[in-house]
Amino acid sequence: MPAHHLSRRESLRGLVREAGLDALLVTDLRNIRYLTGFTGSNAALLVHASAEERTLFCTDGRYTTQAAAEVPDLEPVVDRDSAVALVKRAGDRSASYRRTGFESQHVDVEQYHRLAGLTGGTELVRAPGLVERLRLVKDESEVESLRMACAAADRALADLLEHGGIRPGRTEREVARELEDRMLDYGSAGPAFDTIVAAGAHSAIPHHRPTDAVLARGDFVKLDFGATVDGYHSDMTRTVVLSGPADWQRELYELVFRAQAAGVARALPGAGLTEVDRASRQVIEQAGHGGEFPHGLGHGVGLEIHEAPRLAKTGEGTLSVGMTVTVEPGVYLAGRGGVRIEDTLVVRDTAPELLTLSSKELMVV
Amino acid sequence: MPAHHLSRRESLRGLVREAGLDALLVTDLRNIRYLTGFTGSNAALLVHASAEERTLFCTDGRYTTQAAAEVPDLEPVVDRDSAVALVKRAGDRSASYRRTGFESQHVDVEQYHRLAGLTGGTELVRAPGLVERLRLVKDESEVESLRMACAAADRALADLLEHGGIRPGRTEREVARELEDRMLDYGSAGPAFDTIVAAGAHSAIPHHRPTDAVLARGDFVKLDFGATVDGYHSDMTRTVVLSGPADWQRELYELVFRAQAAGVARALPGAGLTEVDRASRQVIEQAGHGGEFPHGLGHGVGLEIHEAPRLAKTGEGTLSVGMTVTVEPGVYLAGRGGVRIEDTLVVRDTAPELLTLSSKELMVV
Repeated sequence: MPAHHLSRRESLRGLVREAGLDALLVTDLRNIRYLTGFTGSNAALLVHASAEERTLFCTDGRYTTQAAAEVPDLEPVVDRDSAVALVKRAGDRSASYRRTGFESQHVDVEQYHRLAGLTGGTELVRAPGLVERLRLVKDESEVESLRMACAAADRALADLLEHGGIRPGRTEREVARELEDRMLDYGSAGPAFDTIVAAGAHSAIPHHRPTDAVLARGDFVKLDFGATVDGYHSDMTRTVVLSGPADWQRELYELVFRAQAAGVARALPGAGLTEVDRASRQVIEQAGHGGEFPHGLGHGVGLEIHEAPRLAKTGEGTLSVGMTVTVEPGVYLAGRGGVRIEDTLVVRDTAPELLTLSSKELMVV
Repeated sequence: MPAHHLSRRESLRGLVREAGLDALLVTDLRNIRYLTGFTGSNAALLVHASAEERTLFCTDGRYTTQAAAEVPDLEPVVDRDSAVALVKRAGDRSASYRRTGFESQHVDVEQYHRLAGLTGGTELVRAPGLVERLRLVKDESEVESLRMACAAADRALADLLEHGGIRPGRTEREVARELEDRMLDYGSAGPAFDTIVAAGAHSAIPHHRPTDAVLARGDFVKLDFGATVDGYHSDMTRTVVLSGPADWQRELYELVFRAQAAGVARALPGAGLTEVDRASRQVIEQAGHGGEFPHGLGHGVGLEIHEAPRLAKTGEGTLSVGMTVTVEPGVYLAGRGGVRIEDTLVVRDTAPELLTLSSKELMVV
């Protein structure tokens, strides 16, 4: 969809000018994908503040066919050392590349020194986070990819439940694998991150990795998983209970459910990032479990599984329409069990649009 | 296996002293895993040149339980900003941390500036590649992990072939997924890299990604895949033919087979890296196909799928006992088909030890 990429580069030129730069060297592959559609493993992009015609895209000989298909609107410079090749080009034209920004949060110190030795008359200037600033607000083509990634996770979970995939006797690892497999069936290119399946006391470990532990009657089973579509990630957590539930489980679930709903309700344009965290956290604190909710409320999600903005106790900034974030409070009772409930949503004018649609009622399986 | 980690840190102290440094700040997670056994996602390690007792390991509160199990011999400093915490410690004791090296090939420019502002009396010195230098030569515990990763790939391929998994009518994507699934059955934690299944004309694309293209009679099918065990990667390519083979296919296969054997035979201690490449490449050049072998002969493999040393036309250095490399010549006839044959092997005194053991005879399936 070159039209999207073209307009993203246009927006970037605005930021490059604002930053007082003549050009920006983009080397992060996710940022290059965002700006061009290219998905190969070696590329660099040099965006000049003045005009689209001066955009330079470089990749190596392995990717010329792929680049022609994915990036039809840019004729590539072909060079194995893509960043070096573009920095040299800028150096050769230093009259119009006096100040060239680079992605200093992605370029390592050795690479920086290599590049800085080749700049000729152009000055390499630290310019972290310009493309990430654009990526904060998703356009509709990005939301559509996120929607598909979330749908793959929803459908995988529905199938798993329908076929009795979560049952006493299975191991955490088996359940995780089946979830991942079913997401592939629904178009996921692979898990968005290491799938979490945590049964019984393990559910009280926020980032437990699946083991050969066997699911047992009475267990909470916490499932935190996501799919990848077009490079975009989904992220969802559901916690189910295997028979029962006991009173403490019902109460704990109910608490997290209310906290999650409070967080979602507060995810509106203009809301402070800490304020959204607060809305959810205070429900848990009022129930006396503040100390058992040891992480932030959520995070941005897109081409990276964790990206800006961060919904947490500290930090600055507010939500805007088109931001995509998770809302995922959890309460973890060490040695007993924990509950986390998480959705991925898009901030909209009057109410958030949930992208993960699986039921959040307590499921007894 | 703390004994391995302890002796690796001991070796590292030698390199730190040789580099004229008082200490080294290790921030790359693979290097930290190599030196401590820790597999979490946030950690830093400060190794002092003088003594093991001064080793500082830092991770955050999510990982204290895991760290106690994986790194029983180091009491962690608990801090979310792990590198910052250790740099501050060094700064506070600057009399014995005058020159502190950092992994400048892994630390980005922004992180460097953050750290450099906190060093107090200690000077942060670029020290790229020290741990990687140790990792060049694998110890037996590493070789055992690589052996298991290679065995998972061998067994997955054997099962796939035995069950008729490569047959006309299936798609590249289906075959790739079955291979990956079967590797999981044999203990792989996940694919070592994006599995390549390339049928027919696609086999002439060195790094083709699996599509919905359907396998057909007469096709070459190139399979390049690997498993991961204990963080170590395997890497193997086999090319089979679906019925036939035609004369050109038999000849092409035979050529690559001979080139691969020549490369393997030359992978001996003391052999120059370019010399090993040469031994294989000249077989292909003599047959007039030099231009259709557009990549290097192989690469080191271990905690990274691509690491040093590189077997290619250019570069310096020689092989040593205990290095683990791939040998993977290929000849690609655009529009018709290509063959690549690849093993992972360990350099040994008199002959390489192959870790990938699948047959390299031309298989007609």
